[in-house]
Amino acid sequence: MSEDKLTPRKEDFSEWYNQLVLRSELADYAPVRGCMVVRPYGWALWENMQAALDRRFKETGHVNAAFPLLIPMSFLEKEKEHVEGFSPELAVVTIGGGEKLEEPLVIRPTSETIIGSMYSKWIKSYRDLPVLINQWGNVVRWELRTRLFLRTLEFYWQEGHTAHATEQEAREETMRMLGVYADFAINEGAIPVIPGVKSQSEKFAGANMSTTIEAMMGDTRALQSGTSHFLGQNFAKAFNIQFLDESNTLKYAWTTSWGLSMRVIGAIIMTHGDDQGLILPPRLAPIQAVIVPIFKSVAETKTVIETVKRVEAELKAVGIRCKVDDRTEVTPGFKFNDWEMRGVPLRIEIGPKDVEKGSVALARRDKPGREGKSFIPQAGLAGMVSNLLVDIQKSLLERATAFRDDHIFDPKDYTELKDVVQNGWAYSYWCESPICEAKVKEDTKATTRCMPLDQKDAHGKCIVCGEAATRKVYFARAY
Amino acid sequence: MSEDKLTPRKEDFSEWYNQLVLRSELADYAPVRGCMVVRPYGWALWENMQAALDRRFKETGHVNAAFPLLIPMSFLEKEKEHVEGFSPELAVVTIGGGEKLEEPLVIRPTSETIIGSMYSKWIKSYRDLPVLINQWGNVVRWELRTRLFLRTLEFYWQEGHTAHATEQEAREETMRMLGVYADFAINEGAIPVIPGVKSQSEKFAGANMSTTIEAMMGDTRALQSGTSHFLGQNFAKAFNIQFLDESNTLKYAWTTSWGLSMRVIGAIIMTHGDDQGLILPPRLAPIQAVIVPIFKSVAETKTVIETVKRVEAELKAVGIRCKVDDRTEVTPGFKFNDWEMRGVPLRIEIGPKDVEKGSVALARRDKPGREGKSFIPQAGLAGMVSNLLVDIQKSLLERATAFRDDHIFDPKDYTELKDVVQNGWAYSYWCESPICEAKVKEDTKATTRCMPLDQKDAHGKCIVCGEAATRKVYFARAY
Repeated sequence: MSEDKLTPRKEDFSEWYNQLVLRSELADYAPVRGCMVVRPYGWALWENMQAALDRRFKETGHVNAAFPLLIPMSFLEKEKEHVEGFSPELAVVTIGGGEKLEEPLVIRPTSETIIGSMYSKWIKSYRDLPVLINQWGNVVRWELRTRLFLRTLEFYWQEGHTAHATEQEAREETMRMLGVYADFAINEGAIPVIPGVKSQSEKFAGANMSTTIEAMMGDTRALQSGTSHFLGQNFAKAFNIQFLDESNTLKYAWTTSWGLSMRVIGAIIMTHGDDQGLILPPRLAPIQAVIVPIFKSVAETKTVIETVKRVEAELKAVGIRCKVDDRTEVTPGFKFNDWEMRGVPLRIEIGPKDVEKGSVALARRDKPGREGKSFIPQAGLAGMVSNLLVDIQKSLLERATAFRDDHIFDPKDYTELKDVVQNGWAYSYWCESPICEAKVKEDTKATTRCMPLDQKDAHGKCIVCGEAATRKVYFARAY
Repeated sequence: MSEDKLTPRKEDFSEWYNQLVLRSELADYAPVRGCMVVRPYGWALWENMQAALDRRFKETGHVNAAFPLLIPMSFLEKEKEHVEGFSPELAVVTIGGGEKLEEPLVIRPTSETIIGSMYSKWIKSYRDLPVLINQWGNVVRWELRTRLFLRTLEFYWQEGHTAHATEQEAREETMRMLGVYADFAINEGAIPVIPGVKSQSEKFAGANMSTTIEAMMGDTRALQSGTSHFLGQNFAKAFNIQFLDESNTLKYAWTTSWGLSMRVIGAIIMTHGDDQGLILPPRLAPIQAVIVPIFKSVAETKTVIETVKRVEAELKAVGIRCKVDDRTEVTPGFKFNDWEMRGVPLRIEIGPKDVEKGSVALARRDKPGREGKSFIPQAGLAGMVSNLLVDIQKSLLERATAFRDDHIFDPKDYTELKDVVQNGWAYSYWCESPICEAKVKEDTKATTRCMPLDQKDAHGKCIVCGEAATRKVYFARAY
């Protein structure tokens, strides 16, 4: 933790991000190009995210399992679009146990193929369906330009893979999991994501249809934060996932896959962070409240520490994740900056005068200076802190939603579109032609992000070519 | 799930094991040689094991983090014994993103080297110590002879890596984590492991001293079930992990590492399983009690299901992991066999007569037939089931301990030793010479397993050469 100030967000957003990730000790660069080390503070955040997601997966009937890291090269080749999409990004094992392998193995970039091969073995009858399995793990994609959390060679994620008897069930599952992702991002991460359908050119390699949750970062760029894919019968046919239906007819299954990665940590940073550092949503924060004892003399120490320990025990008793910063080698001011950098939602200061008065000083991370400061009695503190954490969570979401809505535009023509995507998203009718999509990208670097789901009776003209259009899409520059 | 009986343990223990793993749906063979798929039931068991261990790690001050999967080949070469030990087992990535890599990367077989390189960056002062980090993840070792759970190319484990200011602290940590492993195995897995020190020839490649917990399987062979290593300053010197002490002197840190893998699932199977299948210790069982409704007519169904749902809710309310098997396409008898195969500790049968009488039938998995069966009132059932689960846990440990003690021998001479290790362990004085150790191995296939810690004022004669010895060791054939 350095005492230097971060490069301000307005000056250089990208540099601000990199500095913040390192100084808050979320992650560090690994000695292998493009790889990262997730430090304990970052991993604790991920553990909370995992728990919040895993609970939702289990509530919707899913179970976890683990499939191999290594996949025979030939498996990827069984699905044409899939291999075309992933082969440029593969890490290939050619030597094992000192000998050249007969068939090279790739480190999984995603697991549709190896899981498909197992499903074809396990699924025989309609009674075996649906299969609803999720896997928490690591994958490797050989990316050229990498950023901590956002795009690294190895990354941590979960990938759900399901198989169903009917197309409708598989489509429902795709949408159900998109809904789970949106609920997670909004209600746990306080990130007001927009769920929707990807364009054909932006969909997953091997999917019939991809859906996504798209988040707006503090620099207005979009971040794809989770995807759920309807795979049709593509992988079922490639891997021969067949079952006997109730009338004893052999049919191909319908499959889905859906994934959300540690990239969402990047989304949290870039949605909520400020020039003082990270701001973590209380529901996911590894430390929700930090207690900083304040004393000048040794005489003061004892009474202060006594109160601090009692407060800590009271907060822990109601399930608040709190920590006492009892370091003696640094000043309280240094500690304030340090925990602000790390984004702890609430700071509790306890000094000799607070002990005397039976009060504490509270400082909210989301409201700097006096606005976020209050002095409250120790009696009933735990309840007060719990309420305050709920309020911080709510206000982070409100602030991010307001920011997002302030930066979504409805340009009247293509000229205005080209202008607004420089500092925001354009929400416009689009004819769904890849030619118009490519033109926008070439002219502005903005891509289609998603077509929201709830567009009813829409009809308009494509913002690019003027032809008839039935849906609006978000155009934005993206990470 | 097949209705065929398992090959009896006495007939072919190894075949019994393989059949059991597949039929209980703990795991399956992967399409890549030597790799496994951990199926949902097996992964749920591992999740419970992870939670029980992780709680102990956190209680002893450890935090989790994640280090890269890929390690530069040159890193391994920095510690001489380490590279000699691991280089025959490496999986090597030579191609990334379609191009040949300048330096090959190995998939981590263990992470001392890459973690050591990060510690040298993070640790500057005595104030940064101790560093107490654990990682949950997968590693790859190119094994030639593989067995599901016991030895696979890729396996799941946790690896703890700690750095300390003094030798004593690092030695204490090594022993603390050995204690955590023993506590976990005994009190969660009901496996009466014996903790102790490995011989020099059996220690971890790069360690000064290795400790282990050794378990006796149902065929009397030993299974090394978790190891904790004192690494001295070997890795600190190889990776330059140095710190300024309180008097501003630059010193090398002292490090430890410790790991426990999914192999313990193999230990659970081979410690408790019988010819009907798996027997899971209640504390780790994904399903602690299965409820089987019994009815013949549609009329009976409704009243039975009502009671079943109420019982399920009551059990869940007190935290019992239970499941209702409401399949209609199979008979109750099939279900009984099925859940016996899967090792569910307790079966609850509820039929129309039980509904009438306000009772249920309970069947303990650990006591077959009448002995394990009881009929008890529905009132107060949840408390009764909780107590019964505690009792099953206790009785599994007692039974395994009795079996272990019945198969540990104190041979009077080398001839007797050669005999007893054919069907048990020999606990004998040993002069600690690798020559005697090698002789036993050559003559009997038995290896030294560990020297228990609490040997005080021991003095005797080596069972092999007759020279003076100060410690006893377990000799056993091992997995």
